[in-house]
Amino acid sequence: MKKLAIGIDIGGINTAFGLVDENGDLYAESVISTKKYPYEDDYKEYIDELCDALLALSQSLSFEYELTGIGIGAPNANYHKGTIESPANLWKYRPEDADKECEPRIFHIADDISKHFGGVKTLVTNDANAATIGEMIYGNAKGMKDFVMITLGTGLGSGFVSNGEMIYGHDGFAGEFGHIIVERNGRQCGCGRRGCLETYVSATGIKRTAFELMATMNVPSRLRSIAYDDFDASMISAAAEQGDPIALEAFRVTGEMLGRALADVVTVTSPEAIFLFGGLSKAGKFIFEPTQWYMEENMLFVFKNKVKLLPSGIQSKNAAILGASALIWQEC
Amino acid sequence: MKKLAIGIDIGGINTAFGLVDENGDLYAESVISTKKYPYEDDYKEYIDELCDALLALSQSLSFEYELTGIGIGAPNANYHKGTIESPANLWKYRPEDADKECEPRIFHIADDISKHFGGVKTLVTNDANAATIGEMIYGNAKGMKDFVMITLGTGLGSGFVSNGEMIYGHDGFAGEFGHIIVERNGRQCGCGRRGCLETYVSATGIKRTAFELMATMNVPSRLRSIAYDDFDASMISAAAEQGDPIALEAFRVTGEMLGRALADVVTVTSPEAIFLFGGLSKAGKFIFEPTQWYMEENMLFVFKNKVKLLPSGIQSKNAAILGASALIWQEC
Repeated sequence: MKKLAIGIDIGGINTAFGLVDENGDLYAESVISTKKYPYEDDYKEYIDELCDALLALSQSLSFEYELTGIGIGAPNANYHKGTIESPANLWKYRPEDADKECEPRIFHIADDISKHFGGVKTLVTNDANAATIGEMIYGNAKGMKDFVMITLGTGLGSGFVSNGEMIYGHDGFAGEFGHIIVERNGRQCGCGRRGCLETYVSATGIKRTAFELMATMNVPSRLRSIAYDDFDASMISAAAEQGDPIALEAFRVTGEMLGRALADVVTVTSPEAIFLFGGLSKAGKFIFEPTQWYMEENMLFVFKNKVKLLPSGIQSKNAAILGASALIWQEC
Repeated sequence: MKKLAIGIDIGGINTAFGLVDENGDLYAESVISTKKYPYEDDYKEYIDELCDALLALSQSLSFEYELTGIGIGAPNANYHKGTIESPANLWKYRPEDADKECEPRIFHIADDISKHFGGVKTLVTNDANAATIGEMIYGNAKGMKDFVMITLGTGLGSGFVSNGEMIYGHDGFAGEFGHIIVERNGRQCGCGRRGCLETYVSATGIKRTAFELMATMNVPSRLRSIAYDDFDASMISAAAEQGDPIALEAFRVTGEMLGRALADVVTVTSPEAIFLFGGLSKAGKFIFEPTQWYMEENMLFVFKNKVKLLPSGIQSKNAAILGASALIWQEC
């Protein structure tokens, strides 16, 4: 009988999910709102709606199959415990419960979903790790034993594979590469510290860089007509295509920060390849060329010209669902 | 029959070796000079002398045993290939062969030794990785699946264990944590770049810091009477014991650089513990206290107060031999 896994991608706005086979073919997909359940005490209701929707989806196929497991990609996920822990943008304390702010919020999501499906194997990891496993099972990292995945979205996520295995670390939280500090007393980060890599290298990071450059440079730029609140990173790509000097410089600076950081990553983990995934990586040569240049420029001699910098092979709208489902195939 | 492994530690001055059992008990040990064979074309003769000495040692025991394998710790070792590649301080080109300088020097040491011992399993890795495996097999990391080892000698070496396995990386060179760049345009490093961690955190690093502090601070210090060439890091420990302000500040600065770097390492690898090994780590509280403080101060919130900073459990004169032999037990 055909085997399928459910992949679930939990974002701050929506939760997308689908039924996927071992080859990464998607048989059905759907979505519910995450945003509708903003508070901690909404979580139970969220799970009920999600499980109803999963059940409906799993009954919608016209052929018989075996449900092998459920994989979940989510922020602040603890792989070892099957939990989501104090996520910044999900199921917060209600404003009137402000006194609880310091208490951790622990959601046992793997168990809570699994029990609706007869205890089927259910695994959860952060979205970047899910994308990493997706790259290994379905994408350009097939057959690689040692590689690094960098996911460039609103923030910067990462996943590390060594000896053919995901590195989850002791706590299950490994791979927070976006939060290495690359600039002492640098830009404020949402984590409460300063100078984290993702404050420079991410959709938000390059936007901040463009605004800094508009302040420090005198050249004209079409970007100068857009207010910060109306601005998104795709406008920088579009401007770069037109040769806009601020946009081009913003990409160079972003590539410099990323390339330097990747040289350090290579020094520690010696990967075969590094994959770039997500919004900013779609800017192609604008981000790849400076990143590659600064990575090699800063590379320890034994690693020079050895490590491939490549685009992800799962750059589709369903990458997050595929990645989450790959959690299950990796364990088989 | 009792099983023993040979552990070999190849340093720039001497090559030490011994017969070790699975519990880390050393049954016999000896040493030959490495320095006697400085040039590339001396290598064959070095191997002959080493193998003669290994044979003599292995025949010196009064009981029967099975030789399980030979483990080698050496600089610039490639675990996957069993080679030592272009080591900075071993078997160099002769001055008259300066034109060859850019060609790699590849020494197939695992094969070259193994064939003298009937093809017995022979593995080579860098000295820091060997110490890491020693910590896992015989030391304080017994039973740990995820930890980091930092070896503080003339330079800074490191080893990473994740999911219970050493991370060698694609090239077999992973773990060069001493060469992450912590200060742009910082101190010159032997690797040809600037600002590498080991230029601040190592016996040489703290010495450089002490000299910088003698230039920037006005306080009296007993260290001011010693010339750079006569100075070694143990003098800073001795002065710190006496409350010398330059020595104490040198340790604080060293701990700050190491603590910050370790916070970044935790962010990426999420270890259960970090072990400090080697000369500088013997300074006890002088190095541990500032390192711990700055590590926590710079730690991403999810990891705060979770990661143990511990002294190595194999701090003995034979640690390098034990570590090299542990390569064999780890594979059994």
